[in-house]
Formats: sequence, structure tokens, C-alpha cells
Amino acid sequence: MNRKVLSNLAFHVLTDREWSRGRSMLEVASAAIDGGATVIQLRDKMSSTRTLIEEGHALRELTRERGVLLIVNDRVDVALAVDADGVHVGQDDMPGDLARKLLGPNRILGISAGSMEEAVAAIVAGADYLGIGPIYATRGKADAGEPVGPGLIAEICKRYTTPLVAIGGITTENAGEVMQAGAAGIAVITAVVNAEDVYLAAHQLARALIV
Amino acid sequence: MNRKVLSNLAFHVLTDREWSRGRSMLEVASAAIDGGATVIQLRDKMSSTRTLIEEGHALRELTRERGVLLIVNDRVDVALAVDADGVHVGQDDMPGDLARKLLGPNRILGISAGSMEEAVAAIVAGADYLGIGPIYATRGKADAGEPVGPGLIAEICKRYTTPLVAIGGITTENAGEVMQAGAAGIAVITAVVNAEDVYLAAHQLARALIV
Ligand code: NI
Repeated sequence: MNRKVLSNLAFHVLTDREWSRGRSMLEVASAAIDGGATVIQLRDKMSSTRTLIEEGHALRELTRERGVLLIVNDRVDVALAVDADGVHVGQDDMPGDLARKLLGPNRILGISAGSMEEAVAAIVAGADYLGIGPIYATRGKADAGEPVGPGLIAEICKRYTTPLVAIGGITTENAGEVMQAGAAGIAVITAVVNAEDVYLAAHQLARALIV
Repeated sequence: MNRKVLSNLAFHVLTDREWSRGRSMLEVASAAIDGGATVIQLRDKMSSTRTLIEEGHALRELTRERGVLLIVNDRVDVALAVDADGVHVGQDDMPGDLARKLLGPNRILGISAGSMEEAVAAIVAGADYLGIGPIYATRGKADAGEPVGPGLIAEICKRYTTPLVAIGGITTENAGEVMQAGAAGIAVITAVVNAEDVYLAAHQLARALIV
């Protein structure tokens, strides 16, 4: 796979300590990038700020070398401290407009949305992309809501041009369906980080995006 | 107690959900200020960023009205989002020099130190005050190290002019001792937030500071 065929926001892999089978975050991220990931999202709700910054620094070096984006989940402070490309905030995180203010105009702001209302609010707040989901049932996020299906992506697509990234239960089998609904990309956690062969899992997903 | 007799950094009360006997953060902070607290430090390691920002906004309004400082523990992002007066970072939080860079020169930066080496590093990183401790054994912070005693305050005082705030097991009985060792103030958690009468506990501590 030549990653250059995918656009910047096409394939997000979110880190997850619990699901990584004891492998290091850096090792998993590196294999995911080998397989075709275009964005690494640092997501770690368990660690101290100090640890997050260490992880962020390491991933920043890796992603810069490899020419992929680094987005930090939730933590604007960590994103600024490690010079990440952007931040992704969910509905329990910092409100989007505040995040935009602290990030400035030049970093990427992603905002989660699980309904048309949330999508509109996120666009108004200044989102550069929306994370739409959960599209399907998922095991990676215990607190994810009811699946919204690819239909929501199609609906939002009809009204707005903001890139939509599908998240929640995305597999090689259904990735084509969400891309056809109008997604600009997908985001996965366990499908990649929990795979026995991270490289292979990422590579198969990357190929499935090209519909 | 007329709080104006105390300097700005004299009496820090840290919030703590677990130890507040079910009372709201705002109610506890308000009574602590009535009793003489000059700094409210928002400390909440359990809640989402969204909740932290809501708490911070409420405390910002309260502290501004009452003319006391608001410091946010650990979270530079939350401090900036709610326009707090500053941030306090411990050894597991963002490194002091990075925190200073994100905060800019005009917000207060407090850094925890439990030894002369940590104190020197904190001063070099740009601390406006040092949190020295744990001075005595404490029940409020499960991860606090071995008590350092008031002697460390006296030692640092001989070499540096940065204000020192004593934390860890401070009571009305020993507050005089740490102030005489050279502390500019004290910081408490359970001694105030867990008290049956928050106002009274704060008031007695405030009086004990005047040695
Ligand atoms: Ni290939």
C-alpha cells in the first residue's frame, strides 16, 4: 500500500493501552502507519499528564518522520505541549468553540457527533472534520451510544461539506458501505490495535477504503 | 476574619469530591472563602474535561466576586478555558517549563517539590510559588510521599526567595510551626473540605497562620 493514495483524513487509528495486547503504543502506531494509517490519534484516558506528554512526544516524532497526522484526543494542553496537528473532542470533552479558541486557527479540530443536531453544533463551533458514530456496534468504547448507521453520514453529506470520519465497528466488510455513504474516512480502535497482525489489519482496512 | 490581612498566596484550599461529605464543590469553596481561604485550587482527577470546565466556570465566578485566586490543578487547558489565575503542577503533571510556555508570563505557575533538587528545578522552570510537601503525614492524597517536615521549608528559604506553600497534614496545631519555618502559606484538603463546619475549620486555620 502506498499511503499517498489516501487523503490526509482518510484513515485514523486511535491508540488504546487496554486493547493493544501489551504491545507498546509506538510499536502499534508504527505498524498501523506501515499498513496505511494516515492519522494517529493519541487516546489515553488512564495516564497522568506527564505520561501523556511523553507518549505524545514519541508519537509526534514518529508521525512527523512518516508524514502522517497526529491528533490528540480530548487534551488541548497535551496537543499544544507536543505540537500535535490537532485535537479531537467528544461530547464529554472541552466544548468545541473553546477548543478552537485555545488551538488557534491553524490546528485541526475534530468534533464527535452522533446526530444531525450535534453535527450542526460542531460545524458552528468550528470543526475541521466530524467524527460520526458509532456507526455500528463497537467493543472499543464502553460508553459509546446506540449505533447510528451509515445513513446519518449520507444525511449530513447532503447538507454540509465538512469532512465526515466514520467511527464505531468499522471493518473491512463494512468500510466500503460507509465510504459510499459519503464518509471522507474511517477511524478504528480495536480493529487495528487489537489485531494479531497490526500491519495486516491496517493494510486490509486501507484497501477497503478505496471503493 | 478579614481575609485582607492575609497575602494572596497565604491559604490554599484544594477541592476534593471524595472528601466533601456530599456537599457541592461550590458550597464548600464558598464557606472556605468565608473562613479566610485566599486561593481555591480546583482539583478533580475523576471528572471529564467537560465537567472540569463547568466546575471551573462556577468557581471562577465565585472567586472573582470574592476577590480570591483560582488555581487549576494539573490541567493547563482547563485553566486557560475558564480564565483561571494560574495552574499548579505536580511531578506527574506537565513539566513546569512546558506549563509556563503554554500559560504565558502573566498567569501564576505553582510547582510541587518534595526535595531541594525538585525545588531548584521548579524555580528554574519558572515557578511563581512552590508547593512543598508532604510536610506531615496526610490522608487526602493517597500517592503522597514520605513526610519531609518543616525543615525543608527552612532550608529552601535560606537559599531562595520564591514563596513556599506548605502542604500535607497541616492543622491548626502545626500551621504556626510551618509559617515560622518560613512558609508564605499553607494548602489543605481534608482539614477544610472534610470538616463538619467548613467555615469554622477554615477560619481557625486562617487565624493559626498569623504567628
Ligand atoms: Ni501496500
